[in-house]
Order: sequence, then structure tokens, then C-alpha cells
Amino acid sequence: MNPDQFRQHGHELIEFIADYIEQLESYPVQAQTRPGEIRNQLGDTIPENGDPFEIIIKDFEHIIMPGITHWQSPSFFGYFPANHSGPSILGELLSAGIGVQGMLWLTSPAATELETHVLDWLVDALALPDTFQSTATGGGVIQDSASSAVLCAVLSAREQATDWQSNQTGIQQTLVAYTSEQAHSSIEKAVRIAGIGSDNLRLIAVDQQFAMNPEALQRAIDNDITQGLKPFFVCATIGTTSTTAIDPVDKIGRICERHNIWLHVDAALAGSAAICPEQRWLHQGLEYAHSYCFNPHKWLLTNFDCDCFYVKHRSSLIKTLGIHPEYLKNPASDTGEVFDYRDWQISLGRRFRSLKLWFVIRYYGLQGLRKHIRQHIELSQQFAEWVDTHPDFQRMAPVPLNLVCFRHNSDDVLNQKLLETLNNSGKCFLTHTRVNGVYTLRVCIGGTYTRETHVQQLWQLILKTVQTIQQT
Amino acid sequence: MNPDQFRQHGHELIEFIADYIEQLESYPVQAQTRPGEIRNQLGDTIPENGDPFEIIIKDFEHIIMPGITHWQSPSFFGYFPANHSGPSILGELLSAGIGVQGMLWLTSPAATELETHVLDWLVDALALPDTFQSTATGGGVIQDSASSAVLCAVLSAREQATDWQSNQTGIQQTLVAYTSEQAHSSIEKAVRIAGIGSDNLRLIAVDQQFAMNPEALQRAIDNDITQGLKPFFVCATIGTTSTTAIDPVDKIGRICERHNIWLHVDAALAGSAAICPEQRWLHQGLEYAHSYCFNPHKWLLTNFDCDCFYVKHRSSLIKTLGIHPEYLKNPASDTGEVFDYRDWQISLGRRFRSLKLWFVIRYYGLQGLRKHIRQHIELSQQFAEWVDTHPDFQRMAPVPLNLVCFRHNSDDVLNQKLLETLNNSGKCFLTHTRVNGVYTLRVCIGGTYTRETHVQQLWQLILKTVQTIQQT
Repeated sequence: MNPDQFRQHGHELIEFIADYIEQLESYPVQAQTRPGEIRNQLGDTIPENGDPFEIIIKDFEHIIMPGITHWQSPSFFGYFPANHSGPSILGELLSAGIGVQGMLWLTSPAATELETHVLDWLVDALALPDTFQSTATGGGVIQDSASSAVLCAVLSAREQATDWQSNQTGIQQTLVAYTSEQAHSSIEKAVRIAGIGSDNLRLIAVDQQFAMNPEALQRAIDNDITQGLKPFFVCATIGTTSTTAIDPVDKIGRICERHNIWLHVDAALAGSAAICPEQRWLHQGLEYAHSYCFNPHKWLLTNFDCDCFYVKHRSSLIKTLGIHPEYLKNPASDTGEVFDYRDWQISLGRRFRSLKLWFVIRYYGLQGLRKHIRQHIELSQQFAEWVDTHPDFQRMAPVPLNLVCFRHNSDDVLNQKLLETLNNSGKCFLTHTRVNGVYTLRVCIGGTYTRETHVQQLWQLILKTVQTIQQT
Repeated sequence: MNPDQFRQHGHELIEFIADYIEQLESYPVQAQTRPGEIRNQLGDTIPENGDPFEIIIKDFEHIIMPGITHWQSPSFFGYFPANHSGPSILGELLSAGIGVQGMLWLTSPAATELETHVLDWLVDALALPDTFQSTATGGGVIQDSASSAVLCAVLSAREQATDWQSNQTGIQQTLVAYTSEQAHSSIEKAVRIAGIGSDNLRLIAVDQQFAMNPEALQRAIDNDITQGLKPFFVCATIGTTSTTAIDPVDKIGRICERHNIWLHVDAALAGSAAICPEQRWLHQGLEYAHSYCFNPHKWLLTNFDCDCFYVKHRSSLIKTLGIHPEYLKNPASDTGEVFDYRDWQISLGRRFRSLKLWFVIRYYGLQGLRKHIRQHIELSQQFAEWVDTHPDFQRMAPVPLNLVCFRHNSDDVLNQKLLETLNNSGKCFLTHTRVNGVYTLRVCIGGTYTRETHVQQLWQLILKTVQTIQQT
């Protein structure tokens, strides 16, 4: 494809995407296809000769599009959002267009320096502890997801707890990790990957707000020490996936400090809210954290993947993940004056992801980003009020931010049926969890294009669907 | 940014990228900036109010661009390539535009099914073992990089070797891994991450072609068994980073089979060449492999990141990496009839990366892709001949594909000076390695826009630069 052909097809595709965004409401939110239905249309054999680009785009439209669940639909309320935006899409485009690989400072100094700079900016923007700044002892790096961030944290903690020996010798003693029973599955996955084992992850009980009980954490640590085991890692969550519960980071942090345990704080969704000064209470106690992450790809208008991962001491991370073969040596790295981000992550290679984040921050500014967050929080509070004031529904958890957990007063069967019917209608998409053992619907409001009218429509649809189910 | 603004800025950016591609040769290949130079221009404080998009692009042009090392330059010969192409860039654009997250089949059935389909296509296209097909016991999945692929392989091997217990209990016995002393640093990194420890990675000696010596492997395994240790994982390389050496996979495979050891084959660069029937000798013995990867993002016109990772038994991978919290349960997953790719990788979330790969394959067809590979191999052979026939230069390793390792006959100092002068000239970019302890230049020919004229220019520049150095 020569530059002129690229121009032609590029312009066509820009129009295609703009049309898509304009027409988002016309698509069924959840793909209405059965397993294998898309694949069966894809052509058994790999093509020997190329096709014109127009044909490929037509196939995308007719074959792929029906199998898309529209995460950008204003009526997508499932999981946590993965919201995109114009400047972010264009940042991804430019990153792909220049096609640089930022594994080392040398392999594109601007890719490294922009990332460092934007991550430092966000320390200010979210009022995170100054130690996370690259100009102090810490620093930030973009990971693909909070799963990778917590894995890097677990590994650094493992190394620190073993006097930097376990990379060399393997794991020689029983290390124990702690998180709440409401924490994300990625914590357990990281503990498994790192060779610690799920048996050595303690799931600490929560209080009535689903936040970790620090006394229970203290008891578990004491018990493990008595058994001759070595507590090494605690993950606290600010905004759990199930209910956006907020662990008491300050109390947990004091316990970790006392026992010299690495504290990681996972604020994957909720962290973005701290861009609004009135939401900074969320991060209370964060000065105790050795590492922290939040995902602009969830709630800050930046395309997946973009997780911002911070450490208090970058030397810990680099010592844990650094590896220096001859073929990557270069004078700039040798000086020790530059960051080589390959030493801050699992993989060697990396895309130029700070570009989209920079575009988003520059284009919207802090004011624009705050407006977006505030609107979602306000709509969620409104939705929670509708639930609270309706006699047939009950709210299942506090709503500190933009997630409402609720259920119909009847039984699990009706609530399951309700979710299934709503999603199959194509008019909205929501997901579920279990709260205190009962089936609970989750409505998370964080879409780029979600407005009051979509939330109203959702509530009306829920009421109507319950009625229909009850009548049949 | 509303759809009309997106149209406007999108069209501008398409023009910008097309212009960039047209003007690639006018940029210095290696960024000519000093540490901190880019960052110092970026503005100390995060903007309170947004900027017009035009201003952001102007800043990109004036601040960021000088700090870019141009991987897509036709005179970029460093590392291994990370080549892009028009259809691939547009695939990334469309993926960002629709912004779906493919962690589960349900969260966009087409994202999962297209990935499965395209990866099955590539089993045929590269004539890989049929067991890697998803329609058999195996299957393929896109990882960000070969580093992540080998980590998934090490973890699956670890689980298999411990009767699927180490995820649960942590590592309870000494497991031993093997790879050649020429293998990529990501193998050691994976062994560290998995809690095995570098001490338990044996770096097996190589022959005069830098390929793993299978007798030495056998001896090392025997020795470890005698010591009461448990060999569990071997990584063979097809096309090492240093010299594109090719390990004897068939002989290694027979050893692994005899001892029930997981064999992973890393063909990150070289695998793509097997799209040409005459290069399929590369994969001889691959039927012994439990897992395999190659990177279309290196040499198959597909933007980074795109590593294709295959396993012979997908059940091993899923059993190792699967984790099922309530909030991700859904009827489709419950049937067991669909793939949920979150269980095939480290992270939970994932981009729609098969789109760009599908675009590339559809647009170029097998014929177009083969032409591209053949051209690079031919140019590399030509370059090797120039080296071989010049009295002042020596070739340091065989050239089975598209990498030429060579040096000037004098000493390390001159060769280092040569590399530095070439890269600082901005006219080309190459990197180095050490072969049998001596400093060696690497020229890898795999750029999308690299033609004979660029390779000729490179050789002339090398000759001229040596002369200049010798005269001063």
C-alpha cells in the first residue's frame, strides 16, 4: 500500500469510524450471535492473492460487526468501562503510523521521555504522593493492564523479601501475600505466576461496606509469623470490581510499615476520579504504598491499553525486572542517566502508548476530564436514588463513585432472568456479581457518550422488563 | 471531540502519516537528542484547559519528532525489525475506533473468533504441525511479545511438571530449565518471574554455527536427574537474536520427549519466513514442540504488538492461566464451547489485535507476503557476499535469513567507533552483538520500505566511514 493508497483508505476509514460513533445507538449493545457464527463466514483458506481494501472493509462491516459487543455504546453499563475518545483514537493511529518500539531510551528517546513526563503530570493531577515522581525516588510506567502492574508489584515484593535472591535461586521459603476477599482475580493470578501459590494468599475478611478489615489483616499476619512464614505483600483495593468498595489504605499501610511488607494499591477504576479534588479522599493513606496503579483506559477517555503503574522506589522494580544482554547494550543505557522501560515491565518490546494519553490530557485539559468524571458520578447517584426509592428494588452496596449494585426484591432466578432479558434485548448491557451470596446486578456509568437520557432509558427498561417477566 | 471534529482531525492525521512515510528518508534514522532534551520542552504543569488539536500535532512535530528513532526508515537495520504497513496501521486505527475489549468471547464474539480463525490460517500458511490448530487439541493466541509467550510456556510447563500443583502450593521442588547460551534474555526473565530462579536455568553450549548442542543438553539433563532435580522446560530457538542461529529442534525434541519435558520453540523473527515454502526447513522437528511462537510484528508487515503463540494442548494453558471470578461468569463461558482468551494470557484485558493481522493477510495475500520476505533474504545474501569478498571485513556467522553479522578485520575499538559513527551520522542505524567474544556489527534487513538502493548505500557508507576513521 503506497502513501496515496494509504491516504485514500485512511480517509475512508476515518469516515467509517466517525459514522460508527454517530450511529452507536443503532447497534444492539451485546452481540446477538451464537458461537461459531462469525467464524463460519470467514473463509476456510488463507487467501493466495490480496483483496482490495474496500472488500476487506465491506467484510468487516458485514461479517465482523454483527459479532461486536459495543463497549462504546452509551448504553453499555457492564464490567468497568473501557472508554475511548477522539484524541485517544488518533493517538493510537499516530503511534501505529510512526511504528516505533520504545524498549530502550535509545530506540526512541521521545517515547520514553514523554511517558515519564505524562506520568509525572498525573502524580500532580491526582495529588498522588510526591515520592511517585520520577524526579524523586519513584516513577511511573504504562503497563497494558492492572494485571501486569500487580504482577510487577508482586515480583518486586518477592525480591525485596528474599534479599534480592529469589530471581537467582528460585523461591526457597514460604512467602505469604494478603488481599481482601473482594479483591480482583488478577491478584491471585499474579501470586500463582510468581511461584508463591494460591495457598499462600490470604483472603482477608471485609466489613459491611466490603472493605478490608485491618484487624483481620493484622491477625492473619501475626498468625503467619507465628507459623514461621514470611508475610511479604499486601494488595489493598480502592474501588473493588464487585462493588467499588474502598479498603482503608491508611490503616493497612501502617500495618505493612510495621512489618516491612510491600503494599500495592490497586485503584484501576477509581483512581481516575481523583483528578477531581473533591474525590481525593479516595487516596487517603497512599503515602504508605510501595506501588500503585490506575487505568486511564477505564475511566479517563484513553483507549485500552493504558494502565499507569507507579513505584515509590524505581530501583526495586529495575533490580527485579532488569536484564542486560549484549545485543541491547548502548552508550546511553551505560551512563545510567536514562530510563529503559523494558526494565520496568514483563515484556521487552513496547508500543508508544504515552502518545494517546498525552493527546487526551492536552485536548481535554484537567477541566474537561473532571467534567466527564463528575457527570458519571452524578448520574450514578441519581440511578442509586431511583433504586432506593422504589419499593421493589434494593441497593446492595454503597455507591461512592459510578457503580450501582442492586437487585429486585424477589429472588435470584428473577434477577438472572432480568439480566439475560435486558442483554438479549440489545438495548443495554450490564453484568452481575454476588453480594453476600446473592445475585446482584451492576450498573457502571462511565461511557464517553453516556448521557442522562441513556440512564433514564435504562431504568425504564429495567422496570418494564421486570413487569414482563412477572407477567409470563 | 464530536464526530465532525474527529473527521477533520482524522483526515489531517492521515495526511500527516502519509507525508511521514513519503519523507522517511529525510529523517536522521537515530534520534540525535541528548537525555532530557525532549522532556525539557514539554511544559512543567499539566494543562488546566484543553488545547486545539492542531496545536498538539504541531507540538508533536516540533518537540516529539526530533526524539524519534525511525524504525520504519528504509535505512533502519538495527535489532530485529518491527515493520508496519498501511493495512496494519489502518487495522490498529479501526481497533481503536470501535474500542472493544476481548477478554471473553461474550465481550465481542467476533474479536475471539477472528483471532482463532486467523491463527489457524497461519498454521496452514507456515505449514506448522496440525496439532496447533484450534480444531485439533491446540490453538493459537496473540500475545504482545515473545517474552509473554515464553512466560506462558514456562508457567504451563511448571504446572505440568508439578502435577498441576504449583499454582496452588507454590514451588516445592527444584525444577530445571534449559536453553542455549545464545537464547534470548526473555527466557531467563521468564524463569525468574515464574519463581524457578536463574540458577536453575542451564545455558547449553552451542556448536560452531551457534546452534544448541543436543549432546550437551542431554548431558545436562542427565546430570540434573542424577542430582535429584527435575528437568521441566527446554526452549529451542529458530533464529537467535545475536546471529539467527537455528537450534536442531528435531534432536532436541526427541530428548524432551524421552524425558517428558515441555519444549517451547521461539521463532520470533524467523518463523515468518516459513510463509515461503522454500524456508520451511526452518521448522524441522516442530512436531515435538508443546508450544511455539513467532512475531508477525517483526517481519510480516504487522504493527507491534503481535506475537502468535501456539500450544499443542490448549487445556494445559487454560488450566494454568484460567481464573473465574463471579463478575466474569456468563452463560457462553459456562457452556465450555467458546474460547475466553483471558485464560490464554497473563493479563485479563486485551485489544482486538487480530484485526490488523487479518487486514495484512487479506490485503497482501500469501503471494504478497512471500515477495516481501524473499526480497529481504535476497538483499541480505547480497550484503553477505560483499562482506565475504572484501579483504578488510569478515563475516562472523552464517546468514540463513536476513541478518548479517560481520566486522572489520582490525580490532574492537575500530568496530565500536564504526558503529557509533554510522549511527550518529543519522544516515543508517545498526546494532551490535558479541560473537565468540568479539565485537560484531549486525545488519538485519527487514524494513517495509527497504530496497536494494538502501542496502548499497549502507555498504558504501560503511566503507567510507572506515576510511575516515583510519585517517584520523
